[in-house]
Amino acid sequence: MGHVRDPLIITSPANPRVKALPLLRRRRTREQEGRTLIEGYEELRLALDAGVVPHVLFYCPDLMGPEALTFGLVDRIGGLGTELVQLSRAAFAKAAYREGPDGFLAVVDTVDRRCADMSALLPDCPLVLVAQGVEKPGNLGAMLRTADAAGVDAVIAADPVTDWGNPNTVRASKGTVFSVPVASDSTAVTLDWLREHGIPLVAATPEADLAHTDVDYTGAVAIAVGTEKAGLTPALIAAADHRVRIPMVGRADSLNVATSAAIIVYEAVRQRRQGGVRGD
Amino acid sequence: MGHVRDPLIITSPANPRVKALPLLRRRRTREQEGRTLIEGYEELRLALDAGVVPHVLFYCPDLMGPEALTFGLVDRIGGLGTELVQLSRAAFAKAAYREGPDGFLAVVDTVDRRCADMSALLPDCPLVLVAQGVEKPGNLGAMLRTADAAGVDAVIAADPVTDWGNPNTVRASKGTVFSVPVASDSTAVTLDWLREHGIPLVAATPEADLAHTDVDYTGAVAIAVGTEKAGLTPALIAAADHRVRIPMVGRADSLNVATSAAIIVYEAVRQRRQGGVRGD
Repeated sequence: MGHVRDPLIITSPANPRVKALPLLRRRRTREQEGRTLIEGYEELRLALDAGVVPHVLFYCPDLMGPEALTFGLVDRIGGLGTELVQLSRAAFAKAAYREGPDGFLAVVDTVDRRCADMSALLPDCPLVLVAQGVEKPGNLGAMLRTADAAGVDAVIAADPVTDWGNPNTVRASKGTVFSVPVASDSTAVTLDWLREHGIPLVAATPEADLAHTDVDYTGAVAIAVGTEKAGLTPALIAAADHRVRIPMVGRADSLNVATSAAIIVYEAVRQRRQGGVRGD
Repeated sequence: MGHVRDPLIITSPANPRVKALPLLRRRRTREQEGRTLIEGYEELRLALDAGVVPHVLFYCPDLMGPEALTFGLVDRIGGLGTELVQLSRAAFAKAAYREGPDGFLAVVDTVDRRCADMSALLPDCPLVLVAQGVEKPGNLGAMLRTADAAGVDAVIAADPVTDWGNPNTVRASKGTVFSVPVASDSTAVTLDWLREHGIPLVAATPEADLAHTDVDYTGAVAIAVGTEKAGLTPALIAAADHRVRIPMVGRADSLNVATSAAIIVYEAVRQRRQGGVRGD
């Protein structure tokens, strides 16, 4: 562990550094500064495990749970060379975005890759997930947890309405936004990039004839899902090598986009483990 | 369409009938009165499609979107013999529980079945989903959307911390709580009921040796999932005929409970369509 400096202590909620933190809840500020927020002990721990080194840690011992106090997350982060700033309860309340804050708020580099930045990261036979037009940070975050669990090699947000750095995405992802390779780009660039790397595209759309279990995911493959409301765009569907639907018998319009992604991604995992569509 | 009475009109937020509505957000009131709330055009439409006949419809034309005004949901509900009560914007705001209400709020019978009430509904070779100890209405609702899409025959909440009638469950379920057969009961009663009906139990737990794709779901089967935090109880795991895990390679602790349920339920759907574990 490196030398941990004494923390700066800020007690006033009117302190300019405290007042600047809520600005990072705005997408434009995040994009201008290239930074975002991680709030919460558990999310921060997962991000650290993924190799994230925060620029600044704002913390408030009065708000911490016994686990946080016992396991010394502040010391661990201080040991990384991160600036430590201790806040009063009032100052932390001003800075925090959650209800029921637990005394941890870190400023970190945001995740801001393009497709081209992912090329070098691709293994042989990559499994890629493309989420088009997703609006809800909770859905992006849920897809990342699935991608993390399933070992997806890259997740691309195509024409996203929200951004990977959105604190609610970070939160819903349980920190996996920092461990799973993610990028955002236009749909056109995403399609070009997949073609360039010889990655066939499977588009999930209710209009398809094939069930999602009827195509082969054992080679390089990208799975594309769209939002519940709009679905995938005609341009993306037309560009796909296969169109598949998840068989549905019920009344409601469709599965949640993150649920659809999980079902198809785990069919790919099954085939890759069992060696083919029918497991032969 | 039956005779539609002229609606009662209430303009004051202090009207006792308006003030009584928020009480149904409490579980105890719901259980005492056997009634719950459905708020929102889309949820209400889905509930009607599932055969629900509301006791009362509170509505506010000022808050309705063009779709609702055009398609005449108020007339449709009035035609069922439901009492219609038109509210002022101020009165509706008092009664509504959502941000951005769209002018529809109905009082309906809550869903309050026990396992025993489900016996007569079971088809041959039922596919049952058991969710143990679920706390978040959003997760119960998401599981119901999956169950609806997949054609699950019964969903049982075992020792639930939330209830099927919770307005947030109703909302997250997109009305499917009224179309999918649901029940809640203790874990002990649920296990007895499954045994009595000869339904083998598959328990999802990270400690299992078998992958979830390695057991046969083509006969009668119940799939049990627990919460992310606590998982399934030792009693349930011990009582299961098979213990399975979803293969995971990532850093985060686990998949969301609704995601896990979707992955396993859709593996069962695949096998039932393709005729066995390996699709032979």
